[in-house]
Amino acid sequence: MLFLISYHANLINPSIKNTCDVVSYFYTFAALITHLNMSLLVVGTVAFDAIETPFGKTDKIIGGAATYASLAASYFVDQINLVSVVGDDFPSETIQELNNHNINTKGLQIKQGEKSFFWSGRYHNDMNTRDTLATELNVIMNFDPAIPPSYQDCTFLMLGNLMPAIQMRVIERLVNRPKLIVMDTMNFWMETAMDDLVKVIAMVDVLTINDAEARQLSGEYSLVKAAQAILKMGPKYLIIKKGEHGALLFNNEQVFFAPALPLEDVFDPTGAGDTFAGGFIGYLARTKDISFENMKRGIIFGSAMASFCVEKFGTERIIGLEQEEVEERVQEFIDLVQFDITLV
Amino acid sequence: MLFLISYHANLINPSIKNTCDVVSYFYTFAALITHLNMSLLVVGTVAFDAIETPFGKTDKIIGGAATYASLAASYFVDQINLVSVVGDDFPSETIQELNNHNINTKGLQIKQGEKSFFWSGRYHNDMNTRDTLATELNVIMNFDPAIPPSYQDCTFLMLGNLMPAIQMRVIERLVNRPKLIVMDTMNFWMETAMDDLVKVIAMVDVLTINDAEARQLSGEYSLVKAAQAILKMGPKYLIIKKGEHGALLFNNEQVFFAPALPLEDVFDPTGAGDTFAGGFIGYLARTKDISFENMKRGIIFGSAMASFCVEKFGTERIIGLEQEEVEERVQEFIDLVQFDITLV
Repeated sequence: MLFLISYHANLINPSIKNTCDVVSYFYTFAALITHLNMSLLVVGTVAFDAIETPFGKTDKIIGGAATYASLAASYFVDQINLVSVVGDDFPSETIQELNNHNINTKGLQIKQGEKSFFWSGRYHNDMNTRDTLATELNVIMNFDPAIPPSYQDCTFLMLGNLMPAIQMRVIERLVNRPKLIVMDTMNFWMETAMDDLVKVIAMVDVLTINDAEARQLSGEYSLVKAAQAILKMGPKYLIIKKGEHGALLFNNEQVFFAPALPLEDVFDPTGAGDTFAGGFIGYLARTKDISFENMKRGIIFGSAMASFCVEKFGTERIIGLEQEEVEERVQEFIDLVQFDITLV
Repeated sequence: MLFLISYHANLINPSIKNTCDVVSYFYTFAALITHLNMSLLVVGTVAFDAIETPFGKTDKIIGGAATYASLAASYFVDQINLVSVVGDDFPSETIQELNNHNINTKGLQIKQGEKSFFWSGRYHNDMNTRDTLATELNVIMNFDPAIPPSYQDCTFLMLGNLMPAIQMRVIERLVNRPKLIVMDTMNFWMETAMDDLVKVIAMVDVLTINDAEARQLSGEYSLVKAAQAILKMGPKYLIIKKGEHGALLFNNEQVFFAPALPLEDVFDPTGAGDTFAGGFIGYLARTKDISFENMKRGIIFGSAMASFCVEKFGTERIIGLEQEEVEERVQEFIDLVQFDITLV
C-alpha cells in the first residue's frame, strides 16, 4: 500500500522521497488513487441472447455490449462503472458475477415489471454473417441513462452500441469531458438514426465499426478512403474491425494493423467486437497513455480478449480468466506477427 | 568483383584472407558464383490476359503466372531461368523486356503456327471474386516442359500454376532435387486433376494456395485445421493467401501472419498471387536461407511486390521498379504491423 501511494506521490511531486513525507500525503492521495481506479465508465446493453451457430444452439444466455466490454476491461482496471438497464427478469446471480469482476452496478437500472433486451440470431457457416431472428427492445426502448454522482470522475468512457441519442445524452451528462471517449455503433443506426449518429461521432475520440459499416458510413469501398472520410466526421481515431481478418487503426497520419488469432474453431462470434473494445479501452485506462503507440498495444490486448470470447458461447470464456492466460495469448499475437527485417 | 569473390571464398574456406590467395581461387569460384547466381528456375504460363475491373478494361495484355513470378523475383536475384511456352503471336518486345529483367528465356518455347494461352476475366466490385469470361489453352494444351542443360543447376524452383502433371514432369527432369521447391496451384486442378495434384503436393516444400482453395483441398473450414490437414499431404510449409486480408505461413509447429498493405485503390488483382510467390522465392534465393524466420521475411517482400502489382493493370507496375521503391514499400509493412509489448 505504501509502495502504491509512493508511486502515485512521485508522479505528482518527484521531490517526495521518504516514507514520512509519503504518509503525510496519505489523505490527499487516497482520493487521487480512488480517482485513478474509478476512471472507466462503460455504457451499453446488458441483455439476453439466444444464439445458433453451426456448433450448437443456446437458450437465453447473458449478453449485451456493455456486459462483454465490462468483463473484458475488468482484466485491466480495478473498477468499472456500468450504466445500463435490465428488466426484473434479469438474474441477480449475473449481477453478482459482474460485481465479482469489479464491475460497479450502481448505474445498472432494474425496471420492475419490464423485460430485459433480447436478441436472437443464427450464424452462417462462415461465422462472419448472421441472420437476426428476433430483436425485442423491451427496457431499452425508454432507457434514460442516469449517471450516479460517484461515476462523475470518468476519465475513460466506453459508449457501447446503443441508440446514438442515448450515447449523446451520456456525454452531455458528464460534468467534465472524459480524457478519451471510445464509441461503438452498428449499421442499424446508420439506417434509422443517421443524423443523431453523425452528431455523436463528431463528439468522440475513437470510433470502432466493422468493415462493412465503414463502407456504408463513408460510401467508399476502399477502407483507406473510408477511413479518410470518417476521420473528417470528427473522431481522431478510427478502428475498423474485420472479424477473423483482424483490425485496422487509423489516425490522419498513421495506420496500424493487428491480425485476429487463427483459431482451430470460432465457436460463437457474439460479443467479440464488444470484448475487443473493452480490452482496448481497459488497457488504455490501465496505462493512462492515449498515444497512437499505446493504442497499438491496446488493440493487441483487445484482440487477445476477443480471441477468448469466440472460443465458447456467450460470455462463458471471458469470465474467470487467469492473468497468465491473457499474457500467454498476447504472446501468441507477438509470435504470430513479429519478423525482423533490417533495411539498409 | 574481388570483394564478391572474396566473400564467396570466405564462405567456403575461412582461412583465405588475402587478395593473392583469392586470385588463385578465381577460376574455381567463378563457376561457383555463376551457379549461385543462376539458381532460380521459374515454370508456369506466359500468356495473354484481357481484364475488366470496376476501374477499366484492357485489350489483350501480357500475363501468365511465370511472367508475374519471374518479374517479381528479378528484384532479388541476378538471373532467373524461365521455362514456359508461347505461340508465334507473342511479341518479341515482351521477351526482350523479360531479358532486360535478367530473365533467361532459353527455356521459353515459341510454337510456330500456334497461339499463346489466353485468359479473360471480369472482377466484381469487391475485387476478391471474378468471373472467367474465356480460357483458351492453345499452346498450353500440349506443353512439354523441356529443361535446357544450363538450367540444371537449379537450387530454387518455382512451380507456377499449371497442370499438376507438367509441374511433376519438371521436378522429375531435374537431375538434382532443388534445395527448395515452391508450388502454386488453384481450385481448377482440384476439380479436374486431383490425383496428379496430390502427387505433386507431396513432392514440394512450400505450397501456396488461397483460403478458399485451402478449404476445398482439406475439407476443413477452419484455416488452422485446413493447414494441419494439408501439411499431412507432404509439404513442409503452407502459405495461405487471403488477398486483401494478407497471408498465413504454417509449418507443423509455427504460424506467421503478414497483412496486405491497405491501399487506396486495388486497381487490378490479376497476378498478385504469382507476384507474391515470385517475390517470396526470389528473396529466399537471394539470401539462401530457407529457415522459418527467413520465410517470414520472404513473405513480407512477396507481399510488398504484390502490393505494387495490384496498383495498375497487368504487369505494368512491376516492370522497372526502383530498388528504393521496394525498400520503401517493405518499410511501410514494418510500420503497419510493428508494436512494442513487453510482457513480464
